[in-house]
Formats: sequence, C-alpha cells, structure tokens
Amino acid sequence: MRGAVIHAPGDVRFEDREHPQVTEPTDAVIRTVATCVCGSDLWSYRGLDPIEEPLAMGHEYVGVVEEVGGEVGSVQPGQFVVGSFCVADNTCPNCRNGWQSSCVHRDFMSACQAEYIRVPYAQGMLVATDGHPADEFLPSLLAVSDVMGTGWYAAVAAEVRPGSAAVVVGDGAVGLCGVIAAKELGAERIIAMSRHESRQKLAAEFGATDIVTERGDEGIARVKDLTGGIGADSILECVGTAEAMRQALHSARPGGNVGFVGLPHDVSIDAQELFLSQVGLRGGPAPVRRFLPDLIDRVLSGRIDPGKVFDLTLPLEQVAEGYKAMDERRAIKAFLRP
Amino acid sequence: MRGAVIHAPGDVRFEDREHPQVTEPTDAVIRTVATCVCGSDLWSYRGLDPIEEPLAMGHEYVGVVEEVGGEVGSVQPGQFVVGSFCVADNTCPNCRNGWQSSCVHRDFMSACQAEYIRVPYAQGMLVATDGHPADEFLPSLLAVSDVMGTGWYAAVAAEVRPGSAAVVVGDGAVGLCGVIAAKELGAERIIAMSRHESRQKLAAEFGATDIVTERGDEGIARVKDLTGGIGADSILECVGTAEAMRQALHSARPGGNVGFVGLPHDVSIDAQELFLSQVGLRGGPAPVRRFLPDLIDRVLSGRIDPGKVFDLTLPLEQVAEGYKAMDERRAIKAFLRP
Repeated sequence: MRGAVIHAPGDVRFEDREHPQVTEPTDAVIRTVATCVCGSDLWSYRGLDPIEEPLAMGHEYVGVVEEVGGEVGSVQPGQFVVGSFCVADNTCPNCRNGWQSSCVHRDFMSACQAEYIRVPYAQGMLVATDGHPADEFLPSLLAVSDVMGTGWYAAVAAEVRPGSAAVVVGDGAVGLCGVIAAKELGAERIIAMSRHESRQKLAAEFGATDIVTERGDEGIARVKDLTGGIGADSILECVGTAEAMRQALHSARPGGNVGFVGLPHDVSIDAQELFLSQVGLRGGPAPVRRFLPDLIDRVLSGRIDPGKVFDLTLPLEQVAEGYKAMDERRAIKAFLRP
Repeated sequence: MRGAVIHAPGDVRFEDREHPQVTEPTDAVIRTVATCVCGSDLWSYRGLDPIEEPLAMGHEYVGVVEEVGGEVGSVQPGQFVVGSFCVADNTCPNCRNGWQSSCVHRDFMSACQAEYIRVPYAQGMLVATDGHPADEFLPSLLAVSDVMGTGWYAAVAAEVRPGSAAVVVGDGAVGLCGVIAAKELGAERIIAMSRHESRQKLAAEFGATDIVTERGDEGIARVKDLTGGIGADSILECVGTAEAMRQALHSARPGGNVGFVGLPHDVSIDAQELFLSQVGLRGGPAPVRRFLPDLIDRVLSGRIDPGKVFDLTLPLEQVAEGYKAMDERRAIKAFLRP
C-alpha cells in the first residue's frame, strides 16, 4: 500500500510502505475513505520543525474497518468510523475525566495520509456511524476528527456561553471551525480576525458577525471598540505563535478566557502580566473523543457543515500538491481520497 | 495622626502624617479599628521591590466611618465597615462582571497602617455590618478584607467544587485561608504544602486532610501519590515565585486548574508546556468586593474563623515589630490596633 512520507522540508512523497497490521489485540486496521493535510503538518514542511528521519505523515481520517484485534468489541469490520488524532484508550482516569488527549497512553496518530491505517486502542478511539454516510457528509465527518473537534475545544476552553462576545484569532481551518463552535455554543458576537477574502467569506457564512483585518495593537484596539471598551469574553487562539497569543491575551476582558489550540512555538507568557489581566487560560491538544458523538450528530443532522473548510480536493496520490497549495496559501485545507 | 511609613528595606517608622480628608465627593474617611501587615508588604521590607521614596504602608482595614463625601449614600458616619485592598467603584462594566479588582478605576489601597484612612469610591468599596461587631470577630473581619478574600478567590479561580482534590501551595496567611475556602467550597481532599509545624497545625484545623512537607519534584510526586497518580483537580498557588508556580502547574491533573494569587515575581510560563499539560490557569488580585457580603456572613455566623492566622497582636504604634516578626517568620501575620 502507499502513503505520504516527508523526507525533507518541501519534500513529501507518496510511496510504497508496509501494509499496516493488527499487532496488538487492541488495534484495528481501517481502509482510508478520506484523509487530509493539517496546518500543523506545515511546520515540518516549512522546516520549522526538524525532520530527523523520513516520517509517515497525516493524523486525520475516516474509513471502513478492515480488521480488529481480539479485544476490540465496539467496532466491527465493515463499519464506517471516525476517530481522533490523539491516541487514547478512553478508559484511564484522564479519559474518564474527559481529557482523552491526556490519556495515560497519550500519543498522536501518524501515517494517516495513506491507503490503510493502523489505529491503536481502537475500542476507545473509533466511533462508528449508523451505516455508511453519503459522500456529501465525508468532508464534514473528516473535519470532526481534528479541525472541527479542535475548534470546538477552543470554544469550550474559552468558555463561550450563550450571549458571549467571542474573538477567533487565526483564519485557518481550525479558526474557521472555531467560528462554527462559538455560534453553536451561543455566542452573540463573533469577531473573526482575518485578512483573506475567501476566509472572511467563509467565516461570515459560519456565523462571524464582525471581521477585523488589523493585527497587533490596532487589532486589539478594534476588538475593544467592538466590545464596549473592555475586551471580549472569550478568545479562541488558533495559531500558536507569540504574536497570536499576545493578540489573544490582550483582546480578552478582565475575567475573560483564552482557549489556545495551536501548538505554541517559542511562546512564553509573563505570569505577572497574566496575573494583572485576570484572564483565564487553557490550551492543549483537543480531547476530540469527548466531543465526537455530539459532533457527528450535528454533522449528520445537517446542523453544521465544517467540511466547507476543504477548498481543494485531490486524489490521495497527489498529496504533495495538497501540501504545496496550503503552504502557498492557495488552499485553506486539502481533502484527499484514495 | 500617625501611620507607618517605609523609608528603606527594614526601616518602617510610625510617624506623624497629614490627617486624611474627604477630597472627592466619592471619598470616605474612616477611623481605623484594626489593620495588619501583609505578606506582600515584605517584598519592599526585604528590598525585593524598590523603594523610590518614603511610602505610607498597609492595605487591609476595618474601621468606623468618620466622614463621607456628598456622593456616598450607602454608608454613614458611625457605621462599622469592611473594605477591600483593591480600589473599585463597583459600577463599571468590569465590576458588574464581578471583576472589581480590574475596575476601570483600579488602584490599590495604601496608607492603611494608620489611625485614619481615606477610602476612594467608598460607595463601591465599603460594606457596613449590622451594628458594631464584638471584638472577637475583628481579626476575622479584617482577614476578609484581604487574605481571606484572596484565599477564596484562589479556590474559585482553581475551580474547587464539591468532591475536589485541592492542593494549597504556600502556608502563609493567604494559603491558610485558601484551605478554609477549599473546605467551604466542598473539597474532599485538601493537601497543604507546609514545612512549619505551627502552620501545619492551623492548616489541619482549617480542614487540610494531608500535609506535604516535600518540595520540588519530590513534592510533586507526593501529590500524585495522594491523587491516584494523575494530580489534583485544583491548585491554589499562594506564593508568587517561579518555584511555587512550577509546583502548582505540575501538581495539577490534566484538565485541572491552577488559581494563582501571589503577585508573580520574575515568573515566566512556557506556553507549550502549559498546552501539553491542559491545565487551566487564572490569577490576579482578588476581586474581594465580589465575595465580601458572603464572607462577612460566614464570619459573623461563626462558620469560618480566618482571624486565627493572626498569631501576633500589637498596638499599631509597634507596627515595625510586626514587620520584623513576619520577616523572621516568628509570626504568620501581625494584627494591629490603634
């Protein structure tokens, strides 16, 4: 079977790899129905994360179960399943607390931009749908496995509530899904910070009430103008840079909350500044498994359509072009089908 | 009238000062009934905060109203009042949101270790009791104006809930009041980190179920041992040093919360580490005003007795000895009466 492997910055190849096997009784192997390229994959593509050896890429997937280990009772071969990018057994104390992304077996999925995928702890990881969903639902179900689950977590961590004023920092796929989440959780005002027309349009379609194009101090001032001078209740930080974190922390009102879901790269927070702001802060890899059943329901009932973040569809074998298009910002997110 | 003035590290003098006046229509002047020395006063006493000019000290007080400005309708001369160490008008948007310590007029009280005190925004600041409380309640009512209010906020910021496992880092007056708060908010397990026998005893009296004497990695390991291996739900960080913050962040379970109420001195937080821990973090000067009516009720009904943190009582004119005793850790907190 074939899958995507990154060899060096800018060098992604779709090449022959070993067919995944059930090696533990808790494993499943699935046949990929759809996968995609994540904004976080670009960190290594752009040479910002080191590549020490060739690495099989991808952590988002929906598929059909091919084979399960002896201890997997919750899904059967032939079922259509959605998983999460975080490996979790869904039974440890952290999982039971709803923090599956801090499972005692925490690991991150890899090698999902491939024709077949091995899923560890499949009983905890995979949620089967009733029957095989129609093709039109595939992009949104795939989005749920990462970007929509992550945007949802950003809104939950930022404590969006009915009536909240929310700001979304970052107009990538996660940020755009954050707009959906803020709306679903009842935010009345949703301010999307975006400079790109196509993304602004999608943000508005998803429920953004205001678009702010300014950044830095000007962007902060604009948010304050829109929020009675004090700042917003909830900020969804969906980037992971120091600039985005600063934007987020300074856009929140005293006592407001920042949920940050972009893996921070060289970001340090001054505790005295945070103290004086009284802003609450919570981040992390999203415990997508906590939200999966609810988000799958919202997709299949037609309530949300996060699949719209995919604005480029390619056959899986052209995965390298997916990276290139996203790197050059020609595409928000590339949808790949074997 | 006389009051405490710090001239240099270690040099606190009780000296003649101008009698405070009502200078704004929103002011009140009160006659001090009791005041005290705060752990935070020791930062300048120890030369850790710069002293650029002689500074009138103290921010905790209970007293009797002497005079009010024309716009103060809620308290009258003759009433016994409890205030907060944070100046707040209690009407601005941040105050209405419950964040009086981020009032648009935020300032910090000073010059309270004195015979008379000017209180700005008195209508928002002061809460009068029914009649004059008996002397036995004075220490606890005074505690409410800062250390008890701050310990309460630490527990609220750390999201202590019925059944929680809580850890209190810091065995000063605020930390000890944090133990009271954790118990009142329903924590089932309260782990006090303390190395001092008299403070351990008081912590146990206030409701601590476990005492941990170890610090650093050993202290973290002990907390994990006591909390099923994953860490505690809620951490009250009541110190403000980098070591205490590290202790707090690493003692929390994934998805747990740290409330930090010691003003951080040279503390920086690595955002990626915080991200991977999934710990929620909120700090700040306590919005004591939000809690005042409730805490006064708890004191006067005999439900809580935070005044026990005062283990040294002095006449106000011996305020310098109060600083000395606390600096040398001979006293937890010095209670001063004119």
